[in-house]
Amino acid sequence: MLGLMQDWPLTVDKIIDHAKNWHGGREVVTRSVEGPIVRTTYAEIHGRAKRVSTALKAWGVQPGDRVATLAWNTARHIEAWYGIMGIGAVCHTLNPRLFPEQLVYIINHAEDRIIFVDLTFVPLLEAILGHCPTVERVVVMTDEWTMPATKLPQAECYEHVLSESHEDCVWGDFDEQTACGLCYTSGTTGNPKGVLYSHRSNFLHTLMGLQSTVLGATPSEVILPVVPMFHANAWGIAFGGPAAGSKLVMPGAKMDGASIYELLEEEKVTFSAAVPTVWQGLLGHMKENGLKLSTVKRVLIGGSAVPESLIRTFHDDYGIDVIQGWGMTETSPIGTLSNLPPELLAKPYDEQMKWRIKQGTPPLGVELKLKNYAGQDMPHDGHTYGRLMVKGPTIAGKYFKDEGGEILDNEGFFDTGDVATVDDYGFMQITDRAKDVIKSGGEWISSIEIENIAVGHPKVDLAAVIGAAHPKWDERPVLILKLKPDQTLDKAEHLAFLQGKIAKWWMPDDVVAVADIPLGATGKIDKKLLREQMKDYRLPTSAGAQKD
Amino acid sequence: MLGLMQDWPLTVDKIIDHAKNWHGGREVVTRSVEGPIVRTTYAEIHGRAKRVSTALKAWGVQPGDRVATLAWNTARHIEAWYGIMGIGAVCHTLNPRLFPEQLVYIINHAEDRIIFVDLTFVPLLEAILGHCPTVERVVVMTDEWTMPATKLPQAECYEHVLSESHEDCVWGDFDEQTACGLCYTSGTTGNPKGVLYSHRSNFLHTLMGLQSTVLGATPSEVILPVVPMFHANAWGIAFGGPAAGSKLVMPGAKMDGASIYELLEEEKVTFSAAVPTVWQGLLGHMKENGLKLSTVKRVLIGGSAVPESLIRTFHDDYGIDVIQGWGMTETSPIGTLSNLPPELLAKPYDEQMKWRIKQGTPPLGVELKLKNYAGQDMPHDGHTYGRLMVKGPTIAGKYFKDEGGEILDNEGFFDTGDVATVDDYGFMQITDRAKDVIKSGGEWISSIEIENIAVGHPKVDLAAVIGAAHPKWDERPVLILKLKPDQTLDKAEHLAFLQGKIAKWWMPDDVVAVADIPLGATGKIDKKLLREQMKDYRLPTSAGAQKD
Repeated sequence: MLGLMQDWPLTVDKIIDHAKNWHGGREVVTRSVEGPIVRTTYAEIHGRAKRVSTALKAWGVQPGDRVATLAWNTARHIEAWYGIMGIGAVCHTLNPRLFPEQLVYIINHAEDRIIFVDLTFVPLLEAILGHCPTVERVVVMTDEWTMPATKLPQAECYEHVLSESHEDCVWGDFDEQTACGLCYTSGTTGNPKGVLYSHRSNFLHTLMGLQSTVLGATPSEVILPVVPMFHANAWGIAFGGPAAGSKLVMPGAKMDGASIYELLEEEKVTFSAAVPTVWQGLLGHMKENGLKLSTVKRVLIGGSAVPESLIRTFHDDYGIDVIQGWGMTETSPIGTLSNLPPELLAKPYDEQMKWRIKQGTPPLGVELKLKNYAGQDMPHDGHTYGRLMVKGPTIAGKYFKDEGGEILDNEGFFDTGDVATVDDYGFMQITDRAKDVIKSGGEWISSIEIENIAVGHPKVDLAAVIGAAHPKWDERPVLILKLKPDQTLDKAEHLAFLQGKIAKWWMPDDVVAVADIPLGATGKIDKKLLREQMKDYRLPTSAGAQKD
Repeated sequence: MLGLMQDWPLTVDKIIDHAKNWHGGREVVTRSVEGPIVRTTYAEIHGRAKRVSTALKAWGVQPGDRVATLAWNTARHIEAWYGIMGIGAVCHTLNPRLFPEQLVYIINHAEDRIIFVDLTFVPLLEAILGHCPTVERVVVMTDEWTMPATKLPQAECYEHVLSESHEDCVWGDFDEQTACGLCYTSGTTGNPKGVLYSHRSNFLHTLMGLQSTVLGATPSEVILPVVPMFHANAWGIAFGGPAAGSKLVMPGAKMDGASIYELLEEEKVTFSAAVPTVWQGLLGHMKENGLKLSTVKRVLIGGSAVPESLIRTFHDDYGIDVIQGWGMTETSPIGTLSNLPPELLAKPYDEQMKWRIKQGTPPLGVELKLKNYAGQDMPHDGHTYGRLMVKGPTIAGKYFKDEGGEILDNEGFFDTGDVATVDDYGFMQITDRAKDVIKSGGEWISSIEIENIAVGHPKVDLAAVIGAAHPKWDERPVLILKLKPDQTLDKAEHLAFLQGKIAKWWMPDDVVAVADIPLGATGKIDKKLLREQMKDYRLPTSAGAQKD
């Protein structure tokens, strides 16, 4: 027997409709790409998004067509976003930080027909668009008087397009499973793969995000999303802000400490979200200039593990609560949040730190567990490692055009590619990437944990740990060091430095000094390349050892 | 083109699974029907709910079958609730406050096969069950040693049933549109009508309810739902508490001021929800005994309009924030909440009161508008009255067994039967029931507003306003008074009392004194019966007046 409640498809046009109807006067403030601070409201954004929709339809955009944005966080980007999605087209957010050849690959793979672009990225598009045959038109998101002379074919001025358009356009009225957004993962191996969000998944993600333990947005909240809209939907803020009627402050192209500080103070921001490096820039600027934050209460930090020092500085020096979040493009991105339960909040702050540095627990709508390679559930005991597996209505079921084939296991879980532990309080902590973890005698050793300790030795500049083949144990860890200038290697010294800080059986079987350790585009150690460089290395302990 | 996110049906078994997995040790504390305070956890509730499911299956309960509860708010009620819903059966919450003949009607209409009953209501069931042929079995929710000798056929002891059962039972795995809960409206006209909630609607309602501006539940929150589970899902708390991992405090059968006060203090409750009369009882008890509340921060009040004095007392005397909520069985029940936006919070508290006494704005997922009888949208200007219409995924689309036929208008909106205004801030205020509003010359006059003023006259005991037929204006208001003992009617005196407090054209055309004004079961004026009693009344102003 089916229930008898109303049929009301979960489509994201209803989010901006809601913002217009109930929070229409609430401000959205942008540091424009052109320079000045500009102010608009949800009601205005709604009307202008309708104009975007009308223009797209006039250009022949059909439901399912991909329309891309190559843009910073601005009110115009929000207008284009809802204007594209409202008519059932797919908003493909391009990441301008990718290499040009990756952008070309992605645009062609997505078959983008139109690209909305910020002034900043016009030269980038001019350089690559000759390689992107599907793109028919480029809309430069600027005023008529700031429209550049450009070599781009079919370049339109956004404000001119809007002034010629009108608001009389019907949104929605399609299945909630309709595709809505497309975002490519900047995968470290192989080509980028597209995650194709649906209206349903984005609407559910918005509701999940409005919880007190996630964004906790309210009409009184002023939110500054530094995290870009091309980075997993600005962690949901481009939906959650309008849904809750929160004031939004959009940073445009400037994410340095001074610019962010100015917006936080001038616009009385209460809540902000960004990756650790942005916060380090802000804290550096504040320390240098003896500044304080007068309105910020909470910051959401994610994108990579949050250093303890960052949590402490916010808390001790500024009285600001840090919520650590973990997620990925494939999880929309909500995965876990480090909200401490009352039992842990009752402990002294120093003791809480053991949990604050972990990635936390999932909200309702995210199922999460640890499995071994045989697909068996691993215990949530705080020390057993397992592959981090997730399941839910806001988690990818396939990649666009079926790249990578079947990505769910027999229970419907998605493998995040991370290795993690989950403790008695349900707090998840990522310990390593699955491909970097060292499999020794059926147990797992975290390369990252050993590296983090080894790099603390005063003679060490960079430290990496990889698994080397071993006839008895399959793999054993080897510690690879880039020493500081004029230092020479004393293996015993570095092993002694690890003694007592890691389990005995984690102790590297060898220590090797190298001239350099390769880093990837984001500054992380490129383990793949390092393993390639070390392919002829043999462990001293492997000689003579026999497989049992 | 469809999105490629996971297929993850929104079913409520996932809510209690989530509570077990991530907040398994969190307490649920009950003032048991037998007397003592009993403590359990979400993990235990989960296991015992599975045992309920296994027992139901053994008794031949099939998906879609109705299984009723006639019970207070207790942990056992939560177990039965999830145990019934988890296997696709429909949990029908019976309201013990209904007249026995209404209960018989409802049980027969729903075709309940099994009833879970609290000790309190065994005599009630014994009296009526002979008239309910579909009921095969009654489960008395008590321990073996407190199991009463009962004349009920097929009476089972809950704890005995659970001890014989086991947890090995698969939940969910059905369409999210599957029926999940059934709750009858205690309609003032005609027979009660059943609202049939789906798993989808209850899951979405849970997410909507977790927002900071609704329940705002977190693992640190301690929630006492005084509002019963048979009253529109305890306003969502029986789902939202486990979903957020909040501690729940269940009041059982005792809702008097002293009992509620004791639980609030002993269990360190931070948030509670109830109708105004419960709060008046609590405040009376506290005032009498000079008590304070040490942990409660917010209270949610709904069910009927919240008197200004209640909001003021909580704020001024106890520093507690009142959130007024409006909803109905047909809305699951979230409709609107009186969360003030920052512009209003910036005003002095006395000025805020103009909005705090209104019912507020809808959250994302509730569409709301005013319409006239021709179906045209009415302006949201704060003074124009319109029929209050609502739409959304958690709002009824039909009644059970199609009672009442088509209940949505051509735009898919449900008519709440209320007349309301919506102001510039989007704040909705209910002004009258649609059937009680007086239609005069195409405009509407609120009977309630005039009554509320007229009853303030020192000679008046009860005041009612109804519309009397008028040849020119269709209807004109007539004020009907029950005077205090030994008072005599002076019409001019009562009209003068209204002067300046209502619009001139709202002024009643006549004032009539009656010996008594009929009240309904809930203490409200029975306008239907009053109109019946006054059917021979003729307005003095109608003589000689002509229709234009």
